[in-house]
Amino acid sequence: MSESAIQYARDRQDAFLDQFKQFLAMPSISTLSEHRQDVLDTAEWIASQLRQAGIDGVQLIPTAGFPVVYGESLKAPGAPTVLVYGHYDVQPADPLDEWDTAPFEPTIREEYLYARGASDMKGQLFAQLKAIEALAAQGDLPVNVKFMFEGEEEIGSPSLEAFIDQERDRIACDVVLNCDSMIHSKDLPSITYGLRGLAYFEVTLRTAAKDLHSGRFGGSVRNPIHELAALIAGLHDAEGRVTLPGFYDKVRALTPDEREALAKVPRKDDAWLAMAGAKALYGENGYTTVERTGARPALDLNGIWGGFTGEGAKTVLPAKAHAKLSARLVADQDPKDVLGQLRAYFEANAAEGVQWELHQHSAGPGAIMDRYSPYMKSATSALATVWGVEPIFTREGGSVPVVGMMQQMLGVDSIMLGFAMPDDGIHGPNERQYLPNTWRGIETYIRFYENLAGQSRG
Amino acid sequence: MSESAIQYARDRQDAFLDQFKQFLAMPSISTLSEHRQDVLDTAEWIASQLRQAGIDGVQLIPTAGFPVVYGESLKAPGAPTVLVYGHYDVQPADPLDEWDTAPFEPTIREEYLYARGASDMKGQLFAQLKAIEALAAQGDLPVNVKFMFEGEEEIGSPSLEAFIDQERDRIACDVVLNCDSMIHSKDLPSITYGLRGLAYFEVTLRTAAKDLHSGRFGGSVRNPIHELAALIAGLHDAEGRVTLPGFYDKVRALTPDEREALAKVPRKDDAWLAMAGAKALYGENGYTTVERTGARPALDLNGIWGGFTGEGAKTVLPAKAHAKLSARLVADQDPKDVLGQLRAYFEANAAEGVQWELHQHSAGPGAIMDRYSPYMKSATSALATVWGVEPIFTREGGSVPVVGMMQQMLGVDSIMLGFAMPDDGIHGPNERQYLPNTWRGIETYIRFYENLAGQSRG
Repeated sequence: MSESAIQYARDRQDAFLDQFKQFLAMPSISTLSEHRQDVLDTAEWIASQLRQAGIDGVQLIPTAGFPVVYGESLKAPGAPTVLVYGHYDVQPADPLDEWDTAPFEPTIREEYLYARGASDMKGQLFAQLKAIEALAAQGDLPVNVKFMFEGEEEIGSPSLEAFIDQERDRIACDVVLNCDSMIHSKDLPSITYGLRGLAYFEVTLRTAAKDLHSGRFGGSVRNPIHELAALIAGLHDAEGRVTLPGFYDKVRALTPDEREALAKVPRKDDAWLAMAGAKALYGENGYTTVERTGARPALDLNGIWGGFTGEGAKTVLPAKAHAKLSARLVADQDPKDVLGQLRAYFEANAAEGVQWELHQHSAGPGAIMDRYSPYMKSATSALATVWGVEPIFTREGGSVPVVGMMQQMLGVDSIMLGFAMPDDGIHGPNERQYLPNTWRGIETYIRFYENLAGQSRG
Repeated sequence: MSESAIQYARDRQDAFLDQFKQFLAMPSISTLSEHRQDVLDTAEWIASQLRQAGIDGVQLIPTAGFPVVYGESLKAPGAPTVLVYGHYDVQPADPLDEWDTAPFEPTIREEYLYARGASDMKGQLFAQLKAIEALAAQGDLPVNVKFMFEGEEEIGSPSLEAFIDQERDRIACDVVLNCDSMIHSKDLPSITYGLRGLAYFEVTLRTAAKDLHSGRFGGSVRNPIHELAALIAGLHDAEGRVTLPGFYDKVRALTPDEREALAKVPRKDDAWLAMAGAKALYGENGYTTVERTGARPALDLNGIWGGFTGEGAKTVLPAKAHAKLSARLVADQDPKDVLGQLRAYFEANAAEGVQWELHQHSAGPGAIMDRYSPYMKSATSALATVWGVEPIFTREGGSVPVVGMMQQMLGVDSIMLGFAMPDDGIHGPNERQYLPNTWRGIETYIRFYENLAGQSRG
C-alpha cells in the first residue's frame, strides 16, 4: 500500500508544487493584526485539503485566538492513534529589503523554494497533507490519525494549553507526531529524541531605599550591582558546573550507548563556534559540545540591568539591580525544584543587609523519548528507507513547549519528524525549503504510518 | 575695622532680608530655556550689587553659555589675592506640588527662609555680597578680591574650563574662596578640607557576534553577563579593598592627628544608614564610615545592562554586556592611573575568548587642603569667633569639579567656606536656609578677610 501511495505522490509532483506555492503565498502572520484574515484563510485552506482527502469531522475549533484546524480518521481498529501536530502561522517577513524575492511570492532557485514559512513549517505541514491524501487515495488510512494544527505557534501558543485541556477527550492518542522539526542535513536524516526544559526567573536585589550619590556614599554601603555580580559569579564553579545545591541530583545520566549515538552527530566544534561568532567554547567539564547543549543542563543569564544605563556618566550608587536567568533542564529534572534551589542559594549567599526577591516566569520540563519504542522505530526506519542512510539521534538544547504539554497533560510522547534544515533561514530573510526534502518528507510520512500499522499487525 | 563692618551689617538686617528675598525671587534655572532671561537678569542683579559696593571692573564676561559675573578690588598691596567662586543659577523647582509655599516666593517659617536656591547657593552668594558691602563701607577692602560667579553650575559648568583657561591672567590669585559649601549643623561649624576625585569608565564585554538562542547555545559558549559578573565580583576582596593592582599605591595615608580630627565628626553610623535607607554598612576594613567616605578611595558600579531587560521572558544568550563604573579617589592618587589599572585587570582576568573594550568618561583628581595654612586658619578662626565653637574638619566623598580645575589649571587651593546644612533640602522641594546662618555667614566672611589681612600684616 505504501508503494502505491508513494507512486501516487510522485505522479503528482507538479500539481503538488503549485499547491505548495499557493499555501506559501498566504501571509498567515499571526502577530500582525492586519493579517488576521490571511491567517483565517490559511486555516480554511488546510481544512479543505483535509476534507478533499476524506478526513472526517474537519472543523475550525475556536480558541481565544486563532482556531485549531481539527480532523480525524479513525478507521483502523486495533491500530495506534497518532495525533499530528503542526502550525499554520508564520513569522513576519521584515526586513523586507533583505529578501532576494518577495516573501509571499514563492520562487524556486537551485532546488530551493524561497518563501516565508517554507521551512517553518508549511513545508512539513504540506508534506503531511499530501502524505495523507496519497494514503487515503489507496483506501482507509492504516492507522488512526487526528490532526491538530494551531495558528499561534509563532506568538508563543497562548491558547494551546486551554485548548488541550478543553479537548483532551477528543485529542486522546497513543503518540504525537510533531512535524515542527528538522533533520541534520540533506544527506543525513536525524531524529530529535530529547529536548531541554526551561525554568525562567527574575531576581531583584535591593541595598538602599533610594538611589544614592556615589560620591557621598561610595565605599560605605553595599552596591547592589556588586552584590548581584558576586551572586551570579558564584553560580558556576571552575569546572563549569552549576553550583546550586541539588541541581544535578535528578539529571538522567548519559549511558555509554547514548554517548556513542551522540558522538555520531557530525557537528564540528569549530563550525559551532563560527555559527555563534564566538571565540571559545565553554561548558561543563567532561562533556562534548553536543552533550553540553542537548543532554546536560545549563544555567544562563538572559538579561541584567540596574543603575544608570544611558549615555555618558551619572554618579549614582543605585538602590537596586535586576537580572533574568534561566535554567535549561534535561530529563528527569523537575523544573519546580529550581526555584527552591535558587532561593536556598540566595538565602545562603546574599550578603548581610541585601534584600532580594525572586520571581518565576515559567517552568516547563525537558523531554526525552525512547529511542527504541515502536513509534520511534517506525520513524527511523521510514527515514532510513527514504534517505538510504540510517538517521542519527540528536538531543536539542531548546524547548518545544507543546511537547512538554503533551507529556504533562496527556501523558504521551512526541515523535519529532520534520524536514527543515539548519541553514533554511527560518525567522530570517530568504527563508527556504530544499524541495527534495519536501518530496522525501511526503514519502517518509507515508512510510511512517505504514510502518506503524505493520508493527501493530505484527 | 571688622567690628564696624559687622555692626554695619547688623544694623541693616531688615533691608538685607528684603534684598535676599528679591534675589531668591528670580527663577535663575539654568537648565530651562524659558528661564534664560531670568538667569541673565540675576547676573545683572549681582553686578549691580557689586558696583554699589564699589567693586571695580564689574562686568558680565560672555561664555558659550551664561556669562560669568566678574569684578575686582585690588587695593591692598602686599596682601593676598582671593578669588571668590560662586554660582547664581539654581535647580528646577519641580515637583511643584510638593512645595508648601511657591519656590520663587520666599517665605519665612521658624527662622528658615524657604525658596529654591536659598541654600544652593544664593544664601552664600548673598552673604558674600553683603560682607563685601559692609567692609567696603569702612574703606578699601583689606585684601585683594576677585569675583567669579558662574551661571551654569547646576548643569555641570560646561563653559567653566574654557573660561578659566581664557581668563587665567585676569583671575590669577593666591587662594580661592569657594562659597558653595556647607557646615555640619547649626551648632557645629565645619570646614571641608578634602574632596574625592573621580575617574569614570564604561566597559563592554563581547562573547559572540550576535545574540544567540539560549536553548540552542546555552552551556556551550560563554555568557557575557556571567563573565562581566565574575570580573566585577573580583574587583573587591573579602576585606572590602579594591583589588586593582597599584590602586592604593599613591593614597596619602591618614596620620594619627588627622584620624583624631575626623573622629570628632559627630556623624553616627545608624544615622548614616537611615539616610541611605540601607540595612548594613560595608567598606574597607580598618576604617570608620567617615574615613571610608572621605579619606579612602572607593570603586563603585554605577550601572549595568545587557541582554533582555523588558517585561517577561526572552530566551536570549546575549552577545554583549555593559557596565559603568567609577573610582572615587583621594590625595595623592592620579586619576590617569586608574585606566591603566583597569586595563591590566581585564587583561589578566577576562576569560579566553572574551573581548572587552574600556572607555574613560572623565578623570578628575581629588583635592586636599592644608588644615594649617594661613588661609585655612583665617577661615577656622572666623568660624570659631562667629559660632563660639571650634569648627571641625571634614572630608567629603563627592567631587567639586571647580576645586580640581583651580588646582590643576591655576595651581591654587580652595577654601570651602559656606553655610548650607545637610537638611536644607537642596535640589528638592522646600529648599530652605536657616536665616541665622545667613547673618553669621556675612560676619564669617568679614572676619575671614580681616584675619587674612592681619596675617599678611603680621
